[in-house]
Amino acid sequence: MSLKVYFDFLSPPSRALLMFLKANRIPFEPKEVKLAKGEHFNKDYANIHPFQKVPAIIDDQFQLIESVAILRYLCRERNVPEHWYPKDVKGQAKVDEYLEWQHTNTRMCGMLFMLKWVYPSTTGKAPNAKEVAHWEKLMNEALDKMEYIWLKDKPYLTGDRISIADLLGVTELEQTRIVGYNPYSNRAALTAWLERIKGDTNPYFGEVHGKLHHFVDKYKGVPPARTDA
Amino acid sequence: MSLKVYFDFLSPPSRALLMFLKANRIPFEPKEVKLAKGEHFNKDYANIHPFQKVPAIIDDQFQLIESVAILRYLCRERNVPEHWYPKDVKGQAKVDEYLEWQHTNTRMCGMLFMLKWVYPSTTGKAPNAKEVAHWEKLMNEALDKMEYIWLKDKPYLTGDRISIADLLGVTELEQTRIVGYNPYSNRAALTAWLERIKGDTNPYFGEVHGKLHHFVDKYKGVPPARTDA
Repeated sequence: MSLKVYFDFLSPPSRALLMFLKANRIPFEPKEVKLAKGEHFNKDYANIHPFQKVPAIIDDQFQLIESVAILRYLCRERNVPEHWYPKDVKGQAKVDEYLEWQHTNTRMCGMLFMLKWVYPSTTGKAPNAKEVAHWEKLMNEALDKMEYIWLKDKPYLTGDRISIADLLGVTELEQTRIVGYNPYSNRAALTAWLERIKGDTNPYFGEVHGKLHHFVDKYKGVPPARTDA
Repeated sequence: MSLKVYFDFLSPPSRALLMFLKANRIPFEPKEVKLAKGEHFNKDYANIHPFQKVPAIIDDQFQLIESVAILRYLCRERNVPEHWYPKDVKGQAKVDEYLEWQHTNTRMCGMLFMLKWVYPSTTGKAPNAKEVAHWEKLMNEALDKMEYIWLKDKPYLTGDRISIADLLGVTELEQTRIVGYNPYSNRAALTAWLERIKGDTNPYFGEVHGKLHHFVDKYKGVPPARTDA
């Protein structure tokens, strides 16, 4: 059965999916869709993802969008260790709880990337300072909830072992580094959690973040006039 | 086993959960948390929902937040017809696809309610017109996607039968009526879908929307200076 995976390295949920596939040695055919080059707006791609975003998969003939739905599907469809997404009804519900929460919370990390990187590098205009401050405030609140509530009494976001929730969480946070932000500063629980994830997914964390980290080092948080991504 | 359900009738996901429970004759102990009276900020409620929102459940001793996680959990834990959430891996993934999509799309309906109703009725200040226009634009885009993509070639959002996706979708859309908006205007597919949902869930659609519809009739889209909800 052939699995085609459509992704971009600068999309957090794409990286979460790639880490999951690599860590579980699931064979797939990589299909990079370069967002910076507008490849997601190609007419052909609209047949794969009606909203022209990434990631998306085609598993044999079965098409699926939405990263969380894709990760859940692969946990059920492929033979992967149960810690990624428990089969037990209550354990699964606790992972679901975070997966549903994150959409309107750590997603703020992505908003900052859009506002402070994508927008200036494509239009040449500076982002609106008031708008940036608004989203930064929401992002700080989301990170505090991760630090003080989700990681309050357990080593991973949803339990004692790494799950797909941690992959989505960590890739979202790492995205903020490109705009010169450090989501781990003064957050001891998040810092220890990051090291755990890196240890559990080594060498794939570094591998899927290669392009992002290259940009972090090269641009020091200041986007180029037009991105060369 | 006792199931306690914490909800407010003016919360769309609370209404989706109530419709599901009633349509499936699942016994529960209703625990109304009046948001307009700030009951979600009570110290005791923070032990039930750490982010002080609704809905939440306690099933025997098992606590769970996030409406989508709760609905999935109940579909697995209780004996309900499979159309609500298929057991088949691919069918389930197609329902998941919508459930994940809706968070950052039809949620705009809720933002308009917050901006045009909750904010003016609690502060006495008029909402920012530019901000309202921004969220209305996003909401119209989300509704168009429901009309032209999700309902393009099927009678329900995720297949041939009603699922938990439809319950979350319909309660979110109905919320906009309180601010004088008609999400069904010039949208034939959404209009026909609404009638199907009402037929399938009768009399529970009307029952859980009683308070909202009373407000729609009473205030004609203009929020009171202080809500008496």
